[in-house]
Formats: sequence, C-alpha cells, structure tokens
Amino acid sequence: MAGPLQGIRVLDLTRILAGPYATMVLGDLGAEVIKIEQPGAGDEARGFGPFKNDFSLYFMSINRGKKSVTLNLKDPRGKAIFLDLVKQSDVLVENFRPGTMKKLGLDYESLKAHYPSLLYAACSGFGQTGPYATRGAYDMIIQGMGGLLSITGEPDRPPVRVGTSIGDITAALFTTIGILSALRHRDQTGEGQLIDVGMLDCQVAILENAMVRYFSTGEAPRPLGRRHPTITPFEVFESADGYVVIAIGNNELWRKFCEHVNRPELIDDERFSTNALRTDHHDELFPILAEMMGQRTTEQWIAALEGIGVPCGPVNTIDQVANDPQVLAREMIVDVEHDRTGPVQIPGIPIKLSETPGRVDAPAPNLGEHTVEVLTDLLGLRHDAVDLLKQEGVV
Amino acid sequence: MAGPLQGIRVLDLTRILAGPYATMVLGDLGAEVIKIEQPGAGDEARGFGPFKNDFSLYFMSINRGKKSVTLNLKDPRGKAIFLDLVKQSDVLVENFRPGTMKKLGLDYESLKAHYPSLLYAACSGFGQTGPYATRGAYDMIIQGMGGLLSITGEPDRPPVRVGTSIGDITAALFTTIGILSALRHRDQTGEGQLIDVGMLDCQVAILENAMVRYFSTGEAPRPLGRRHPTITPFEVFESADGYVVIAIGNNELWRKFCEHVNRPELIDDERFSTNALRTDHHDELFPILAEMMGQRTTEQWIAALEGIGVPCGPVNTIDQVANDPQVLAREMIVDVEHDRTGPVQIPGIPIKLSETPGRVDAPAPNLGEHTVEVLTDLLGLRHDAVDLLKQEGVV
Repeated sequence: MAGPLQGIRVLDLTRILAGPYATMVLGDLGAEVIKIEQPGAGDEARGFGPFKNDFSLYFMSINRGKKSVTLNLKDPRGKAIFLDLVKQSDVLVENFRPGTMKKLGLDYESLKAHYPSLLYAACSGFGQTGPYATRGAYDMIIQGMGGLLSITGEPDRPPVRVGTSIGDITAALFTTIGILSALRHRDQTGEGQLIDVGMLDCQVAILENAMVRYFSTGEAPRPLGRRHPTITPFEVFESADGYVVIAIGNNELWRKFCEHVNRPELIDDERFSTNALRTDHHDELFPILAEMMGQRTTEQWIAALEGIGVPCGPVNTIDQVANDPQVLAREMIVDVEHDRTGPVQIPGIPIKLSETPGRVDAPAPNLGEHTVEVLTDLLGLRHDAVDLLKQEGVV
Repeated sequence: MAGPLQGIRVLDLTRILAGPYATMVLGDLGAEVIKIEQPGAGDEARGFGPFKNDFSLYFMSINRGKKSVTLNLKDPRGKAIFLDLVKQSDVLVENFRPGTMKKLGLDYESLKAHYPSLLYAACSGFGQTGPYATRGAYDMIIQGMGGLLSITGEPDRPPVRVGTSIGDITAALFTTIGILSALRHRDQTGEGQLIDVGMLDCQVAILENAMVRYFSTGEAPRPLGRRHPTITPFEVFESADGYVVIAIGNNELWRKFCEHVNRPELIDDERFSTNALRTDHHDELFPILAEMMGQRTTEQWIAALEGIGVPCGPVNTIDQVANDPQVLAREMIVDVEHDRTGPVQIPGIPIKLSETPGRVDAPAPNLGEHTVEVLTDLLGLRHDAVDLLKQEGVV
C-alpha cells in the first residue's frame, strides 16, 4: 500500500519551512505532491545549508518524495498551465504573504468559481485577515510575538529560542489537519474551501497552561529554566556526569522516590507533602534534590528509577538521538538516495499506520526534475511544446 | 455549519495532555467527542491547577466541547457498554501506556475482528513497538530523550525546557493527522486501522535542520541561546526597554538594514557579506549589532524596520499576547461559560475554514455529566437501568 492519501494530488506552491513541511506530511502519507518552483531559482531553501555536493540537505529533509515542476506564474502561458494543473488537483497549498496570490490572479476567491471542489490551503505568518495580515513573518518573529520566547529561558536571564523552528512546524501540522478535515467534508459533499492558518494563531493554540494561568491570576507566566511550572519535581538535574530528567507527577511516585533515596522524612515533610506544596516550596526542595542527584551518573539514576517505576530519562544530544535503539527500531531515521548526494539519512514518519503505512521512497527533487513528465503525462503536452516553453523561460 | 467533521463520533479514553489535545482538535472541527472517565476519579488533569471554584481551568482549556461519560471498564457490564459505544463510533483514541488496553481486552487486535472499520488511535510515549514501548513517559522526559533540550538553552549553560509541553502537543497533532488520513482511507474502502504515534518519534520528526546538521558534520548541534543556528542576524537583541527580534534571511534585507542604521560599510565587509559569512563571524557581528539595537526602544525599532520591510517583532509576554489586536481579530481567545466557573477565556481554533468553520461552543464537562444522555439516547438504555448501574459503581 502507498499510504492512506493515495490518489490525492497536491499542488504545492510553498517555500522554506511551514508550507513544505505540511506537504511533506501529506506526501509521506501517500499523496502525490507536485512542487511548483520558479524557473532558475526555485525554493529559497535549496540555498540553505548544510550541503552535500552542493545539494541542500535541509531542502532534502522536508521535500523528500515530491515532484518538482518549474513554472513562471507571471507569464500567461505559465499561468494557463498552472490552471490546468489546478483542475487536475485536489489540494493547493501556498505560504506566500497574503496578497501575493491575488496579484497573480490565483487567490482563493479567483479560483473557487472555476474549481468549486478545490481545497485551497494558505499558511502565513498572521493569517489572511486582521491588522497584521500582510506583514512578513519568520519563525523567530512568531516565537517572540506568540509568547513562547517569554516563557522559555532561565529566570532573570534573556529569552531563549526553542532549538527547532516550532513556529513553522506547528503551523504546518495545523495546516495539514485543516486540509484533511476539509477533504472529509469534500468527500461527503463535493464542496471545496479555503483553509487559512496563521503561525501566530498556532502559537496561541499551543501555549497550553500558560494562557489559562494568565487568565486565572492576571499575571504573565515567566521563564522557569528547566522545570515545569506546576508539577514538582518535574525537572532537569545535574547528575555526576551530565543531566537527568525526573518527572514525578503524583504523591505515589514521590513516596517511591523518597524511599528509594533513603529520605523517607521528605515524604510527609509539611513543605513537600503534595504537588502544590512542592511547587510552592521549589526553592527549598531544589537544593536538597540537586545535591542528591549529583551523586550518581545519569545511567545509574535511570537504571535505579526505572526499576521502581519513577519516570526519568537522559538529556540526549542529537548524535545520541540518531543512534538510539528505540528511534532506530521505530524507523525514525530513513535513508534516501539522490543522484547528487548519494545516500543520506533524514528523519522518518512518526505516524505509524497498520494497514496503509506511509513511506519515504524518494529523495527531494532537483529543480524542475519532473517538469517534462508532469506536463506531458498529466496535461498531455507534446515534448516539443515543452521544449519551446523551456527555451522561452516559461518552465 | 458545525465543522467539517460533523457526523464523526470519537470515543475518547485519553487523559492529561497529548490524547485530550488530539480529541479537542477533532471536536473543534465538528466531531462528537465522548470522553470515557473512571467513575469517581476521571481524567487526572481535573486535579491540575489553576482552578476557578474548584474546577480546573487546565482541564477546561483542552476538553472544551466534549461529553463526559463515566464507565468502569474493569466491570463486565461497563465493558459491555463500552463495546456498544465502540460499535456506534468511528474513532477510538487512547493514550495509555502500551499493554493497558490489552489487559482490559480492548486493544486494537481484540477489537478489529469485531469492528473492522474502527479507527483505533494509540498515542504513547514511545509507540506500540520497540525496546522502550512499555516505559512510562511525560513531556519533559521526551523533550530530553528526543534531543530538543540539548539544543535549547544558552551556550555553556544547562538545558532549558521549552516553555510549553511541546512533546505532548506535537504528538497530539501527528495523532490527529494520522486519524484524519486513516478516515480518508476508510471513507474510500471501509477499512479501519491502528494509528500508532509515539511522542519520541514526533520529537525526531520536528528536529528539522538539527538532524541533518548532525548527519552532515558528525557533530551534535549545541544550544545557541537566542539565535538561529544557520541564519544571521536572526536573533533576539536587547532594546532600550526590553527585547526585539530581527530576522534577516537574505542579503537584500541585510543591505536595507545596514543602510537604515547608517552603517553602509557593513554591507560589503568581507566578514559579513553573505549569510554564511555572517553566521561564521557571529561573534564579531553580535557586539556591533547589540550596541546598535540597545539605542532605541522595541517600539521604535519595530516602527522603523517595518517601514523598510525588515522582519522584526517584540518578545511578547503572555498578557500581551492575550490582548494583541491580531490575536483578538483572529478570535484566538474565546469565552466559554460553565456552571461552576462562570465565563472563562481559553485559546481558540487556529484552523480557519471558509465553508465549515469549527467552533468552540461548550465548556469542558463535569465528570459524568453526559452519562445518562449518552447511555439512554445513543444506546437506548432505560433511565432506571442507568440508575442501577450508577448505584453499583459501573457508571
């Protein structure tokens, strides 16, 4: 089987990260993704390192399995070809700044009259409406505006960037969900629609308890370094040789932990006898635990605490993650082979389906690699017509 | 309209965060979500603060719009009722530790013979397979094991927790995508399946360029504080009165910025003339920019840089986010009214659909609030039969 989305065709106008990540997920699950790129230039991410033999591995990791068709949308012939492709597609995804597609005459309003069952997904910094709609945005701008930076970092020190582009990636995932839910509606009714996702909205949606804590107290939550705001101890400690995370979410686990470390008096200590009290008295509890946790290695702690069912784990570096037995057993590192890079390793698919598993079965495309194939096979153009379009810079 | 998933019924056995977040998204988009809770106890998150009149606002924010049915699955009568509910449902979602559902005789293998079109989604720490499958996990354990903690923090200082439970939330979003893609396949073929999502796998999937940087160089990426690893300047700076983020992704923006701050000599400075060079010479560039950025307020910088099209933004605190004009215009803060809490504000829906918009139209349920309704209306039990089950602790 080729994934649950077999038979779905996605016309992909996206660049860099949020949009391409969304169409990657659709492609991983079996959709055919046709990436439309500007002749000569292509997705800017083709220019982002790291490179192998001048091919961007960054681009590779989020564009695997897609087809690349070059098309100049400003040329009337390019636009006509594009509209022919829209007609043959189920989904259009774009992540331009709002207004760009309208200038091309290719916005949702223009297309929906002719293609009423089209699913048109637009992923942008701030969404298609509202006072900031036409502003540009990048991941870090959104991490900052959406509040995540303000609660990530050490107390009384500058904010810290989340180590991955979580503003882009959560927007990609919500966009994918929007597309698939709208596909359900289309399958039932034949009706297409606009799926409008703004990165800033997505940041608000993932703030989780920070938002309700603010509404509850009127005070803005602050960064707390390496601990959880309302569960204690739920924190990173220094071990004898590195770091170890412990996650004690209830009194039963607290009891087990205290008994294990031979400090039974802490269990009913009136400062620490409930989670709420432990959180209130974190400043008193922390040095007691820190002193204790520093006495064994990370591996020793994990062996001991796992034995008694207290959740704990290491702080793995990326090399450790890439070689972790569980990560490998779950096929979360996959190989793709590309003519320019040779074999390279990229992250796999985290959605494991029993009957229609997804698959990473091709590398990212070279720029325009599938132009001839798509234009002749799908649209029925003659090879010499495509050659002519190529000479004139339309494709 | 009531959302694109109208007519889909979700049987929800989830607790705390990852599972409930997934079923919240399905409910926001129109699915009927029936949350099955243990009589007397219910979802542990009902005990997590902050509270208003003893009702958990944490629980409220991720369980809005769901129905609550209490059911003791260890009682044969409770189990029989559960199976009757499965028969009437499209999707079952659970986030128990693998093995728990098997002990109850309710795992995917047991159910699929009788309910071949059931979509069974299991979201767990490590997935249903592999050496760690049966281990417990919480968000911070997964942030640690998945490598995100190792790249989040200041250089040469301890790792920093991402300020929101991103391990849970990304797993929730991938689970939702898995369910919706499998729904598409079921709509086409009638075939159900197991959707198996592990939080650790999801962390690997969101590492983005960190993973390819490791495979490319053999060196594990390290935390870089408040800057982007490969784009410069793409960073948080201290302004005269707080912080400001600038995101200069290409040479054209770099030129505009340098001209604006009246430092044209920086444009072609051989250390800074390309993004790769600016990144390589970050240590030399940073103090020059930091000195400059400290001379105006955040608001002054934003007004000036927006005027010339250089992406920038503030580091908003959560109160600022909650009151931001764009956030409000996009209806990302919604009110729900609950009999115990009165009106409360929670985050809205980040997926904006033109034809079948989702809606947050009910608060989170009280424990067992819909037991009678669901058992009589959906399963056709008589009221006195439900009363008896209640007396005997089955519901």
